[in-house]
Amino acid sequence: MKNIKLIIAYDGSNYLGWQKTKEGPSIEAALQKCAEQICQHPIYVQAASRTDAGVHAEGQVVNFLTSREPLEIERLTISLNALLPLDIRACNAEQMPPSFHPTLDCIGKEYGYDICYGRTQKPFNRLYSWHYPYNLDLDLMEKAVGYFIGERDFSTFCNDRKGAPYEHGIRRIDQIEIMQLEESRLSIRVVGNHFLYKMVRNLVGTLIYIGRGKISISDLPSIIDSQDRTQAGVTAPAHGLFLRRVFYGA
Amino acid sequence: MKNIKLIIAYDGSNYLGWQKTKEGPSIEAALQKCAEQICQHPIYVQAASRTDAGVHAEGQVVNFLTSREPLEIERLTISLNALLPLDIRACNAEQMPPSFHPTLDCIGKEYGYDICYGRTQKPFNRLYSWHYPYNLDLDLMEKAVGYFIGERDFSTFCNDRKGAPYEHGIRRIDQIEIMQLEESRLSIRVVGNHFLYKMVRNLVGTLIYIGRGKISISDLPSIIDSQDRTQAGVTAPAHGLFLRRVFYGA
Repeated sequence: MKNIKLIIAYDGSNYLGWQKTKEGPSIEAALQKCAEQICQHPIYVQAASRTDAGVHAEGQVVNFLTSREPLEIERLTISLNALLPLDIRACNAEQMPPSFHPTLDCIGKEYGYDICYGRTQKPFNRLYSWHYPYNLDLDLMEKAVGYFIGERDFSTFCNDRKGAPYEHGIRRIDQIEIMQLEESRLSIRVVGNHFLYKMVRNLVGTLIYIGRGKISISDLPSIIDSQDRTQAGVTAPAHGLFLRRVFYGA
Repeated sequence: MKNIKLIIAYDGSNYLGWQKTKEGPSIEAALQKCAEQICQHPIYVQAASRTDAGVHAEGQVVNFLTSREPLEIERLTISLNALLPLDIRACNAEQMPPSFHPTLDCIGKEYGYDICYGRTQKPFNRLYSWHYPYNLDLDLMEKAVGYFIGERDFSTFCNDRKGAPYEHGIRRIDQIEIMQLEESRLSIRVVGNHFLYKMVRNLVGTLIYIGRGKISISDLPSIIDSQDRTQAGVTAPAHGLFLRRVFYGA
């Protein structure tokens, strides 16, 4: 069996998330179907991150096993892109050692979250940015970033997973960068090792509340320590979030 | 009667262009309907540029006359945006002298055209960029730009308007700038006084053919002089084109 690693990008607007569900279309089901057409046998695809409904990906990492012979790895992305809908693209394909696993081997991830602030959002951004119709104090947001960096319990920023609690909420955030893309539009980059459920969207919602003045920086340490989700900012909507990269060891 | 000037932005993906048509949705009809709801009388909206089906606008300029009293101009964009679909946004409203006319007073326009080149296009760009699945020689394209600048007959780059020919094809191009937005993605800015039918898209298609090596720079002067549409490059597709700004005199 060959172990194939794919890097895929998708516009999550029209999907109920990565994971297969009877409720409607998923990235997993769309990709599985096309991989099965090519490989001519049942395929099970696994992803580094099971992105939520509406979340986009630029560098999702996926693997599957295939016994298909011959399988021209150089032509695999071309074949996949000929079959996949235009809102899902295969960017790269690579054969890996049998032991490679996209979730278990992952040592970190980079997310991006795009926001348009101020009264009007350009219509071209409406599917890929949260429109927050107020002004933001970017200096305050910049100052807040430092409080999140490092290894700590991030339970304050974890939504309820409905009966599937984590063992603990300790995670490490390596970087949060706020980048002004153009006037009234910014992107927040978050890099860390592992992430709790909706953690990036809750971090973003909290940073936005700081920029709006709804949360004060002096309260931030106690909010982080509280392990109480209700103390933090709103969960930012799914359509501003992009899974940008997944990191693996050497 | 008050003469109201609006700056509007729209995602042209779901419209048959600016102009009202019985065939399907248009920007004009959508805007007219909302303006009539606010003004409570029939409205006729005119635009600086009647953009084609699928073309986007960031700074389209529109006017209409209204006898509505009182009309709070500061609240007009808010009211319009509450009524308009999310893919059309009113960015600014201003009361103008009775003589102002968005088409007749226009002294120039700026267009942008976005292109993703190379094998794969990110799915987020698919609605707003032409995917040209080959490599491009940007140096060659850069060198070609100079041949288009200035006042000359651009009939080579004008599509047939079906029985509505122009008096002449003389137009002035002030600037063409090729900007690398990110890896494998560029934007071409074109500024000029007036434009012939599909002129920007034909200029872009010709620049792309130069970048691909399908047209050689040494042939460019004779192609421009030929006034023969078939000598130039392909008409670039509508969904990469943005009307960015409309210019008026002092």
